[in-house]
Amino acid sequence: MKCLSLLAAWCCLLLTASGQSRALVLQTDFGVRDGAVSAMKGVAFGVSPSLPVFDLTHEIPPYNIWEGAYRLQQTAAYWPKGTVFVSVVDPGVGSSRKSVVLETKSGHYFVTPDNGTLTFVAEQLGVSAIREIDEKKNRLPGSEKSYTFHGRDLYAYTGARLAAGVIRFEETGPLLPDLIRIPYQRAVLNNGTLQGNIPILDVQYGNVWTNIPDSLLAQLNVRHGDQLQVRILHDNKAVWSGEMPFAATFSAVPEGKPLAYLNSLLQLSFALNMGDFAKTHTIGSGPDWSVEVRVTSRGTSTPPR
Amino acid sequence: MKCLSLLAAWCCLLLTASGQSRALVLQTDFGVRDGAVSAMKGVAFGVSPSLPVFDLTHEIPPYNIWEGAYRLQQTAAYWPKGTVFVSVVDPGVGSSRKSVVLETKSGHYFVTPDNGTLTFVAEQLGVSAIREIDEKKNRLPGSEKSYTFHGRDLYAYTGARLAAGVIRFEETGPLLPDLIRIPYQRAVLNNGTLQGNIPILDVQYGNVWTNIPDSLLAQLNVRHGDQLQVRILHDNKAVWSGEMPFAATFSAVPEGKPLAYLNSLLQLSFALNMGDFAKTHTIGSGPDWSVEVRVTSRGTSTPPR
Amino acid sequence: MKCLSLLAAWCCLLLTASGQSRALVLQTDFGVRDGAVSAMKGVAFGVSPSLPVFDLTHEIPPYNIWEGAYRLQQTAAYWPKGTVFVSVVDPGVGSSRKSVVLETKSGHYFVTPDNGTLTFVAEQLGVSAIREIDEKKNRLPGSEKSYTFHGRDLYAYTGARLAAGVIRFEETGPLLPDLIRIPYQRAVLNNGTLQGNIPILDVQYGNVWTNIPDSLLAQLNVRHGDQLQVRILHDNKAVWSGEMPFAATFSAVPEGKPLAYLNSLLQLSFALNMGDFAKTHTIGSGPDWSVEVRVTSRGTSTPPR
Repeated sequence: MKCLSLLAAWCCLLLTASGQSRALVLQTDFGVRDGAVSAMKGVAFGVSPSLPVFDLTHEIPPYNIWEGAYRLQQTAAYWPKGTVFVSVVDPGVGSSRKSVVLETKSGHYFVTPDNGTLTFVAEQLGVSAIREIDEKKNRLPGSEKSYTFHGRDLYAYTGARLAAGVIRFEETGPLLPDLIRIPYQRAVLNNGTLQGNIPILDVQYGNVWTNIPDSLLAQLNVRHGDQLQVRILHDNKAVWSGEMPFAATFSAVPEGKPLAYLNSLLQLSFALNMGDFAKTHTIGSGPDWSVEVRVTSRGTSTPPR
Repeated sequence: MKCLSLLAAWCCLLLTASGQSRALVLQTDFGVRDGAVSAMKGVAFGVSPSLPVFDLTHEIPPYNIWEGAYRLQQTAAYWPKGTVFVSVVDPGVGSSRKSVVLETKSGHYFVTPDNGTLTFVAEQLGVSAIREIDEKKNRLPGSEKSYTFHGRDLYAYTGARLAAGVIRFEETGPLLPDLIRIPYQRAVLNNGTLQGNIPILDVQYGNVWTNIPDSLLAQLNVRHGDQLQVRILHDNKAVWSGEMPFAATFSAVPEGKPLAYLNSLLQLSFALNMGDFAKTHTIGSGPDWSVEVRVTSRGTSTPPR
Repeated sequence: MKCLSLLAAWCCLLLTASGQSRALVLQTDFGVRDGAVSAMKGVAFGVSPSLPVFDLTHEIPPYNIWEGAYRLQQTAAYWPKGTVFVSVVDPGVGSSRKSVVLETKSGHYFVTPDNGTLTFVAEQLGVSAIREIDEKKNRLPGSEKSYTFHGRDLYAYTGARLAAGVIRFEETGPLLPDLIRIPYQRAVLNNGTLQGNIPILDVQYGNVWTNIPDSLLAQLNVRHGDQLQVRILHDNKAVWSGEMPFAATFSAVPEGKPLAYLNSLLQLSFALNMGDFAKTHTIGSGPDWSVEVRVTSRGTSTPPR
């Protein structure tokens, strides 16, 4: 029976080791041409060899906190509860900016400098609690002299220990009342005109994404086949305006023609079928880009969405 | 003894969970600068935390089905039987194109839009059966309103469930008689001249790959040290012609000089030692690029291959 | 009791399979636009489905052995003992260059062509033993005709078998007395002037890294706030010279201004706060780039490092 208990203990240990169900997901602006991301993964692997480690992206444009914030929002909800995200876009490394861990109401965790990176996920997933990382307890042993690579020494280390269950959320550090948040224009419907922001471009294809959700389109009763008047503004000056249908598929318009559609986040977006809208019309993204959208004519032959 | 059976049951469960032996391999034209690939991986991880997920590439040029098809052929045979490939190069997303799962005679699986992506692997690995994905049963719950991201909502979800054993191949949907296939010129030997296609460039080094296999070279009795006359044609017009040896190693010719060799797929290829053949001579690839190769003199000092 | 032993044997097997604690880390100059890296991973997965496989980088500039050597040094120490690195930057593939496995005193393993790739890790981690890969015993079965893809057929295969415990280090091949090493200028302190090499740029941000360690700075008693005179030379001709403070954080100087700091490897480096030092001043890296550094004035208000 002693042998049996030993066996049971073994199995328990094994279950803990291999039944790992929390992922660590890494995002940085480091690129993958040097060894920085691999050093972070080495630290995570050293914390727990059975921890599943994934990349969100490492191609955030250098220092672009806004885009880092957007990518977290685009992705986080598709990962299960318990997933730990580490995001390192950190122009203020070495300054007095705080290092934080966010637990959302959805049960996701985010480990990052407190510089606005969590603006969107805090809204989208809800804030359960915020803690400031206690660097005394949560720093890669031996890294004390390194001031410039918190991604490896602090964030990957702490994120891996949290994901692997080596520490609990409560052990990351003391509670904080709130996060740094980037101010930005919300999507609204005013007198039949939809107004919103262009948070990001779909870079690979040149599609223009807005923050106008399908629920606002529904308030305006927009259906597939309706014709839309779209104005795109930079610093409140019109850069492009034109008409296009609201369509369910890119192939609803001829090649090279514009269409409006719901992107994969169910937000209003603009594209050229088989073309690059942003490059063709020199459209950018960020807090200073906005859009105005009106319905000019209703489709007749298309069933309601 | 009850305790023992419980333990055995545990171990069984554990074996199933950790003895995961099928990989999920992802290919797209999404790039890795945004969150699209990570959202796909999040969905796969949500299906099974112990599923091994790998990338083939996400740098297929946008909408380039031909290149996507080629990359699958280049890679698939090096993955073990049971591996599930998800390939998303999908210019027709939202149109009436079908979504399919191919089971090859080699025991590999491919989940993809039915648009020609499987042309090469269907030939190379053999078709065992083709099924059309039943979107009613095989779609990420909650994704019904999203029309444009089948890679996440349909293909990653179905591929992960197939790889993890949540569903069997038979449960992906009804049988289809055949796939869409891209027509292309096969490699032939005519009157001492080898003819073939340039399916792809070895982009990193600028080497030019043909579809002429070592077996055709053997029919012409080509040996290392033989001198070859090579003509490269675009739309049947000669773009470059010249002589080069058929060599076992790049260092068989001086730096900057051309050579012919067998690439890692054992197909005839052209390179400049330490140089970029394609860029230097403006060579491209695709269905409209072809080659003609003749032996002009036989090597004397080299032992037979 | 027979049943119990069976169970114990099972558990043992399981422990071996899932308790995998050695990672395989891959570095190449292949890029990730084609299927080459994925073929390597397929081979590794075929060796052991439970082997954790990671990327260091695949963006080493083609044939740049020096940079490949540097990236291994930058990363290896952050991975635990037992990690197996496969590095394939191999301009001499098919020539008589040897294939080797290095075991370092730190307990790491490196599988690579013997062409200088191991110069830095051999110094940094110490040589325990070097073996030449016996291609008769350690080659992917069926790959005998392929001369040009040792990364897949030899290195990934051997690295995976070593990491997975299929073979022991002793089984990789016979002992070799030494490795090929690239000669380079060491960092020195001469009459109050620090001299060193620029091994690499921090490509993503344009920071300039030297090989001058913090221990040499300590010999010169350099402290945060001290003003440094920096000269950067290419082929011994001055390309740039100027003054900058030695700082703990980038934000210690105004945006666009230069600073000297310790990088994440604790080596002296130069940056522009929020800018690109290398691009702005056309600085490169490699054996022909060097630096000279002198202290011009001591900071008064800053506590000692």
